[in-house]
Amino acid sequence: MASEKKMVEQITSMEQDFTQWYTDVVTKAELIDYSSVKGLFILRPYAYALWENIQSVMDKMFKDLGHENVAMPVLIPESLLQKEKDHVEGFAPEVAWVTYGGSEKLTERLCVRPTSETVFCEHYANIVHSWRDLPKLYNQWCSVLRWEKTTRPFLRHREFLWQEGHTLHATSEEAIEETKRMLEVYADVAENWLAMPVVRGQKTDKEKFAGAESTYTIECMMHDHKALQAGTSHYFGDGFAKAFDITFTDKDNTLKTPFQTSWGVSTRIIGGIIMTHGDNRGLVLPPRVAPIQVIIVPIAQHKAGVIENAEKIAKRLKEAGIRVKIDISDQSPGWKFAEYEMKGVPLRIEIGPRDIENGQCVAVRRDNLEKSEIPFDELEDSVKRMLDEVHNGLFAKAKKNLDENTFTATSMQEVSQIMQNGGGFVKTMWCGDLECELKFKEECGVTSRCIPYQQEHISDTCPCCGKPAKKMVIWGVAY
Amino acid sequence: MASEKKMVEQITSMEQDFTQWYTDVVTKAELIDYSSVKGLFILRPYAYALWENIQSVMDKMFKDLGHENVAMPVLIPESLLQKEKDHVEGFAPEVAWVTYGGSEKLTERLCVRPTSETVFCEHYANIVHSWRDLPKLYNQWCSVLRWEKTTRPFLRHREFLWQEGHTLHATSEEAIEETKRMLEVYADVAENWLAMPVVRGQKTDKEKFAGAESTYTIECMMHDHKALQAGTSHYFGDGFAKAFDITFTDKDNTLKTPFQTSWGVSTRIIGGIIMTHGDNRGLVLPPRVAPIQVIIVPIAQHKAGVIENAEKIAKRLKEAGIRVKIDISDQSPGWKFAEYEMKGVPLRIEIGPRDIENGQCVAVRRDNLEKSEIPFDELEDSVKRMLDEVHNGLFAKAKKNLDENTFTATSMQEVSQIMQNGGGFVKTMWCGDLECELKFKEECGVTSRCIPYQQEHISDTCPCCGKPAKKMVIWGVAY
Repeated sequence: MASEKKMVEQITSMEQDFTQWYTDVVTKAELIDYSSVKGLFILRPYAYALWENIQSVMDKMFKDLGHENVAMPVLIPESLLQKEKDHVEGFAPEVAWVTYGGSEKLTERLCVRPTSETVFCEHYANIVHSWRDLPKLYNQWCSVLRWEKTTRPFLRHREFLWQEGHTLHATSEEAIEETKRMLEVYADVAENWLAMPVVRGQKTDKEKFAGAESTYTIECMMHDHKALQAGTSHYFGDGFAKAFDITFTDKDNTLKTPFQTSWGVSTRIIGGIIMTHGDNRGLVLPPRVAPIQVIIVPIAQHKAGVIENAEKIAKRLKEAGIRVKIDISDQSPGWKFAEYEMKGVPLRIEIGPRDIENGQCVAVRRDNLEKSEIPFDELEDSVKRMLDEVHNGLFAKAKKNLDENTFTATSMQEVSQIMQNGGGFVKTMWCGDLECELKFKEECGVTSRCIPYQQEHISDTCPCCGKPAKKMVIWGVAY
Repeated sequence: MASEKKMVEQITSMEQDFTQWYTDVVTKAELIDYSSVKGLFILRPYAYALWENIQSVMDKMFKDLGHENVAMPVLIPESLLQKEKDHVEGFAPEVAWVTYGGSEKLTERLCVRPTSETVFCEHYANIVHSWRDLPKLYNQWCSVLRWEKTTRPFLRHREFLWQEGHTLHATSEEAIEETKRMLEVYADVAENWLAMPVVRGQKTDKEKFAGAESTYTIECMMHDHKALQAGTSHYFGDGFAKAFDITFTDKDNTLKTPFQTSWGVSTRIIGGIIMTHGDNRGLVLPPRVAPIQVIIVPIAQHKAGVIENAEKIAKRLKEAGIRVKIDISDQSPGWKFAEYEMKGVPLRIEIGPRDIENGQCVAVRRDNLEKSEIPFDELEDSVKRMLDEVHNGLFAKAKKNLDENTFTATSMQEVSQIMQNGGGFVKTMWCGDLECELKFKEECGVTSRCIPYQQEHISDTCPCCGKPAKKMVIWGVAY
């Protein structure tokens, strides 16, 4: 029991210090180790397994929609990065430059890719000639590098893992449709797999991707009422295609310029999972992507039949397609409870001599610590039902947090007040001017999260300048 | 028919120019595109899908043996790379150096990883403390960079995809066992999934990995009788652990140094697949990893019922777990035949009005172009059987090539003669001295491929120096 206590004590409570709580969770749950280069983190097996599960869900969705995976070079020549002006302006300040190959100085600097629009464009220019070659629906799973000043596990890595979709279409309509379709895929993943409710919307011009005509986003609310941008999808028009001289001969035999999109989700979303579902006992993982869905802890495991029965349960659950682990190490049950609570395993099954006598085991939900007894003959169905209940419980809790901390305001003063009283998402009308957007930052400390799809009429005028309002914007403080 | 002819004409025959044949295949089968940086190649969807299939086979084998995946940083500080002396000597000349982050010059150069022993060691030193923490069985799927002078698609990329296993064990026995176990996994993948017969053996000291105590290898023979090293597994002893100060407290409460292995297979193996199975019509893919296992080509597809029946077949095969594609584009059947032969699809199914009348379709094997009729009601079983037959046929053909071009020799003159007469693998005895090994290169143009597990007694003495022989070595020219 000493070690159980020790373990729980090791986490700072989130009420006391949210930032420290977060750091404690990522290290104590064995998600992250620090390397000797600032901002380059090691994804330990538990974090990587979580990412693999998210990957496999997304990869299947992409492929079902006809996307194909490719591998593009990790290095991009400076001249290639510079071809699209807005793009290079956005990324050049934060790329890492390779200047030597072996002992030889390179004639042209190469950057470690911060994103791959430029190399995809170069490739598309090579391989796309005719309408028969379109659409190109490509995706890449890789890591990218951005030389950020401030870094934090998952939220801001200098190197992070992600997927970047890059598609090329004959018409702008098709490309816009693709941009919005992929945002829906992201919303589906977030809500139905990660139990993270999202707000869908469009970024303002100030917040859109460097080189994009428009950027769509899903925004999630964390425990501390800050926003996390969990996935973005960009429509490029034909800007990149023109800069890279991509053309195709259409059915009518004329030469045309195609239209383009890109979209990405990164390991950042793991930071979102932690700050959406975690609690003062540690991580809480959404069951549908959890590396271990059920942990089995035998009680009084030295007694006859306990381990055998625990293993029988493990086997049955495994055969039912559930990711299950059994811990028969010599640590105490209390130590094990704390350990797997820290790791956020959605469901714990305890089984001891008395349970066996009664033909049952005990199941404890990680999200609310509710205990229930499961008769052996209902094992698989009950566990599946309970995993769904944990998913639904997590989603409902997160939705409540989102709803209760989303406010409307009609004046700048109101916005400031809301942000001082614990913060959250604030909906206001907006005239559409950059100056007003900047004043929201200056006066209230918030940035525009998005212009949500679901528009409401809150007032007639922009709370900043008093001019007629064009759109409703959601404001917040973002990670 | 014009385009069919054109397509076939586009490939140089391998008898005429093997190197050009290879380049033709990788480009015409749409495996590779060149980027604007020499040696950085683009893996197009068809090549990447092949790699994904190989990955998924290997990843499952690794996980079944208890290995876990992790993600390590792409950049390694110069000081970290230098910690193990043999290792840095081997790799420093061919690494790419990052010297700038944004506009700031870095205080220490960082190399783009050429391999990750050093970062794994740094991490192990952080997280391994007790015997309870061992073994660590980690693997990473990633890309690595080696600044080679001469580059070729798949065979020698400056950046290539691979997996690198890195394991840490309490005893040398365990580590050696792991090293050999993983070589067997590689041999299993090569022979039973890629239809590539292998020679298993140990590398000489000259040919072993930089920093390893011993390196084990699987060597395959290509069409041109050259060798391709298809996978290697290294035993490090405690050299790296000592250099990186990795220690653990053992059960007896004493501080010990653990023992280490690493092992890797890369996209290079795709080059091996091409040069083992390909022919003058293009690629020939081993069925168990082929992205498309069966291509269905409707004949006279404008006639009533043809496409419907072709789609019915596709649906049945898909439901039977077979990777099937149906091509109903407006290209001619002849064009389609040539296209999918070029892409090496193991089995083609043709279905036209007369076949439908007869309740059958026609199947054509890619490996030997043998035609057979398949009654509709035997479809799934027949296709599965034929895919196995293609696998076995490919393996047998490659084994025949290996066997017929493996020779024994007792003198240097004999070795030279064999290499002049078309080359191959040459088995000779060897005294174990580096000088003799170097003379084989100098006088006969061969390097030692391995000291095979399966030793034979060919003569009593080393053919080079005449001293007593210690081992039998296989010599050859390697990619």
